[in-house]
Amino acid sequence: MDGPLHFKVHHRLPGTAARSGTVTTPHGDFSTPAFMPVGTKGTVKGLLPHVVASTGSEILLNNAYHLMLRPGDELVAQRGGMHEFMGWHRPILTDSGGYQAFSMSDVNQIDDDGVTFKSIVDGSSIHLGPERAMEVQNNLGADIIMAFDDCPPSVHGVHGTGEANHARRLEQAVDRTTRWLHRCVEAHGRTGDQALFGIVQGGTDLQLRARSLAEVTEVDLPGYAIGGVAVGEDPELIHSVVREVAPRLPEDRPRYLMGVGYERDIMEAVLAGVDMFDCVLPTRNGRSATAFTRQGRINLRNARFREDDAPLEPGCPCLACSVDHPLSGDQKGGFSKAYLRHLFQAEEMLGPILVSVHNIQHFQSLMLDIRRAIRDDAWPSLVRDWPVLGDPALKG
Amino acid sequence: MDGPLHFKVHHRLPGTAARSGTVTTPHGDFSTPAFMPVGTKGTVKGLLPHVVASTGSEILLNNAYHLMLRPGDELVAQRGGMHEFMGWHRPILTDSGGYQAFSMSDVNQIDDDGVTFKSIVDGSSIHLGPERAMEVQNNLGADIIMAFDDCPPSVHGVHGTGEANHARRLEQAVDRTTRWLHRCVEAHGRTGDQALFGIVQGGTDLQLRARSLAEVTEVDLPGYAIGGVAVGEDPELIHSVVREVAPRLPEDRPRYLMGVGYERDIMEAVLAGVDMFDCVLPTRNGRSATAFTRQGRINLRNARFREDDAPLEPGCPCLACSVDHPLSGDQKGGFSKAYLRHLFQAEEMLGPILVSVHNIQHFQSLMLDIRRAIRDDAWPSLVRDWPVLGDPALKG
Repeated sequence: MDGPLHFKVHHRLPGTAARSGTVTTPHGDFSTPAFMPVGTKGTVKGLLPHVVASTGSEILLNNAYHLMLRPGDELVAQRGGMHEFMGWHRPILTDSGGYQAFSMSDVNQIDDDGVTFKSIVDGSSIHLGPERAMEVQNNLGADIIMAFDDCPPSVHGVHGTGEANHARRLEQAVDRTTRWLHRCVEAHGRTGDQALFGIVQGGTDLQLRARSLAEVTEVDLPGYAIGGVAVGEDPELIHSVVREVAPRLPEDRPRYLMGVGYERDIMEAVLAGVDMFDCVLPTRNGRSATAFTRQGRINLRNARFREDDAPLEPGCPCLACSVDHPLSGDQKGGFSKAYLRHLFQAEEMLGPILVSVHNIQHFQSLMLDIRRAIRDDAWPSLVRDWPVLGDPALKG
Repeated sequence: MDGPLHFKVHHRLPGTAARSGTVTTPHGDFSTPAFMPVGTKGTVKGLLPHVVASTGSEILLNNAYHLMLRPGDELVAQRGGMHEFMGWHRPILTDSGGYQAFSMSDVNQIDDDGVTFKSIVDGSSIHLGPERAMEVQNNLGADIIMAFDDCPPSVHGVHGTGEANHARRLEQAVDRTTRWLHRCVEAHGRTGDQALFGIVQGGTDLQLRARSLAEVTEVDLPGYAIGGVAVGEDPELIHSVVREVAPRLPEDRPRYLMGVGYERDIMEAVLAGVDMFDCVLPTRNGRSATAFTRQGRINLRNARFREDDAPLEPGCPCLACSVDHPLSGDQKGGFSKAYLRHLFQAEEMLGPILVSVHNIQHFQSLMLDIRRAIRDDAWPSLVRDWPVLGDPALKG
C-alpha cells in the first residue's frame, strides 16, 4: 500500500455518479458507501466496541474537540492512541475539532491563526488552529484525519438582514480553509499511517463552492470531504450543493459528506458519488426513544406500543430485534416494543442501548443494500425495500 | 422432578455447615452457593441478558414491587412472564414486594391485611397483602417466589428510646409473617411451576428468630429464607443471626439470605449453611465508579488511575478486564483503568456498564471459588486467593 490509505472502486451505477468500493487503512478495510457511527468522547454511547462491530460498522468517528479537552490527546497518545484506548480495532476517523470549537464553545477570538475558546471541562483558555489540530489528531492516531477548516456555524443569516455579512463570512471561510489546509499539510507529522482529508467549504453558494473545490483539490490528498452542510439548512439545499460538488471531487479518492444525515439525504449523496457518511442521528435518536424503521421513525414512549409484542423491525438482524443473534447465545435476544417502551418509561439505560444499536444497524443495513444495489444495478429494488427512501410523507 | 424445585447437595465442608449443590427449576439449574444479581425493574441496569449470563450468573432477582407498579404484573403475564418479557431464559426469583412497600413507600396504613401505599409512578393508592403479593408473583412467573412478610424497616431504635416499641413491633412482625405465610400458601396459584419460599423474621432478637424459625418451617415449603437482615445493622450482628438461624433451617431445602452482602458476609453465611444470596452492591457500586477487587474496593474517579493502563483486576475473565473475552471477538476487549476513569469523568454510560459487569463477575468468581473450596475441602486456599475475605482492613 502506497501511503496510509488505498481506495478501490468496484462497481458503478449506470446513469449516476454512485460507486461502491473498498478503502484500505492501517487498521483494515471498510466498504463504501460507508456509514460511520459517532463515538464523540471515545465511546459510541452505551455500546461496547464488539456491539458496534456487530452492526456491520467498519469505521467510526471520534471528535478531536472533546478528546483534546478530556482526557487530553497526549494522555491518549501515551496509551497507544484511540484504537488501543477505547478498544476499537477497526478504522477510525477523527474530525479536526474546528466545527465544535466554532459552534459549541464560548469563543473568545477567531482570527487567521484559528480559534481561542474556553474549555467546557475546566474553563481554561484553549487555542485551536491548523498546527494544533494536526498535533491533536496525530496524538489520537486515527487512520483518517481531517484538515482544520473554517466552518461558519449556520446559514440562518443568508436570507435575512445579515445577508451581506454572511456572504463575506462565507468567502472568508473559504479563503481560510484553503490557507489552513496548506498549514495542515505542513504540520501533519504522521503521513505514513494517517490519511489527511481536505474539506471543501462555501455554504450554499455554488460559485464559492466551485472556488473552494478548485483550491482544495489542488492539494494532492488521499481523500476529500464536503463540509459546512447539514448545519441547519433545508435538505433540498444540501442535495443541490452535494450534486454540484461531489461529482467534481477526484474520481479516484474517497469522498466524505460530513454530518449527513437521514436516509434520503444519504441516498441522494450516494447518487452524486459520495462514499462516506457520519451522523449522530441513530444514537441521539436512540437515547430519546426514537427508533428508525424502513417505514419511518417511531417513538417508543407512545402508548400504542404498550402491549406491542413485535420487535422494532421484523427481520432486522440487530441485537435488539433478532431472536437468534450470535452474541445472545442461550439468552436468545430479541426484545418487544412493549419491553423497550417499559425500559424508557422506567428510565433504564438498556432502552437507549438497545434502540441505539438498532438504529445503527438500520443505517448499516441501508448501506449494505445500497452497495448491493450499485453492484447489481438494482436501484429500484432498493427503493422498494426501503419505503422511507421513496415516500416523503414518511419521516425518513 | 417432584414439584417446581429440586435441591441436591453434592459436597459438604467438614467442620462447618457449608455445602455445595444444585437447584433445578423449570428454567434450568443453578449451582449453590449462588449469587443473584438484581434486575429491579426487569433489567440488570445497563446489561443485556447475555452479558449477565457471561459472568456465570445462573439466576437473577426481579422486584415485584417495582414491576407491579410499572409496567404492571398483568401486562407482564400477557407477554408470557418475566423470562419472555426481559429475555432472560434462566431461573428468576421475585421478592414479594413487601420490603419495598414498607420501607420505600409513602405508606398510608399497615394492618393485618398488609400495607396501603401511594404509587411512586402515578400517586394512586395501592394495596399489597399476602393474596395480592401471590397474584403479582404468579403473574410475573418467576421460578422462585417469596412469601409476603412483615419486615420492620430498621433496627435503629433497638438501643435507643424506642427499644420497647421496637421489640413489640418485631414480635408483631414475626406473628404477622407466620399468619401471612399461611395465607400465601393458600393463595399461591401456580404451585406446579413456581416454588414458594417462606421467610424467617425476628430482627436481631435470637429468641424471636427461634420462634419465627419454628413457625415458618412448620409449613412444608421447597425453600426458606432469612429476612430482616442487612437493613442497617452491624455486620457482626448479621453474622450472629445467620449462625443461629441458617443451620437450623431444613437440611434438604435451599436456604436464602436476603439482601446480603459484602464478600465477608457471604463467606460467613456460607459457613453457616446458606445457599443463596442477592445484593445490589455490584451494580449500585458499579454505577458510582466503585469497582470490587480481591484487594478491596477502588474508586475510578480517583486521580491515581488517570494513566493506569492495567485492567480492574488482572486475570479477571469479565468483559471489562479480559483481552480475549469470547463476546468481544475481533474487537479483543479489555479496558484500562485510565479508559474507565475517562468514561466516568465524561459521564458516559459505558463506565457504569463495564464496572457493573466486572463487579457481578467479581461476585460470581467468588461463588465459583467458594463452591470449589467446599468440593475440594480447600477453604484456606480460598481465603489466600481472596485477601478481601481475610483482612478486615480491606474494604471488602
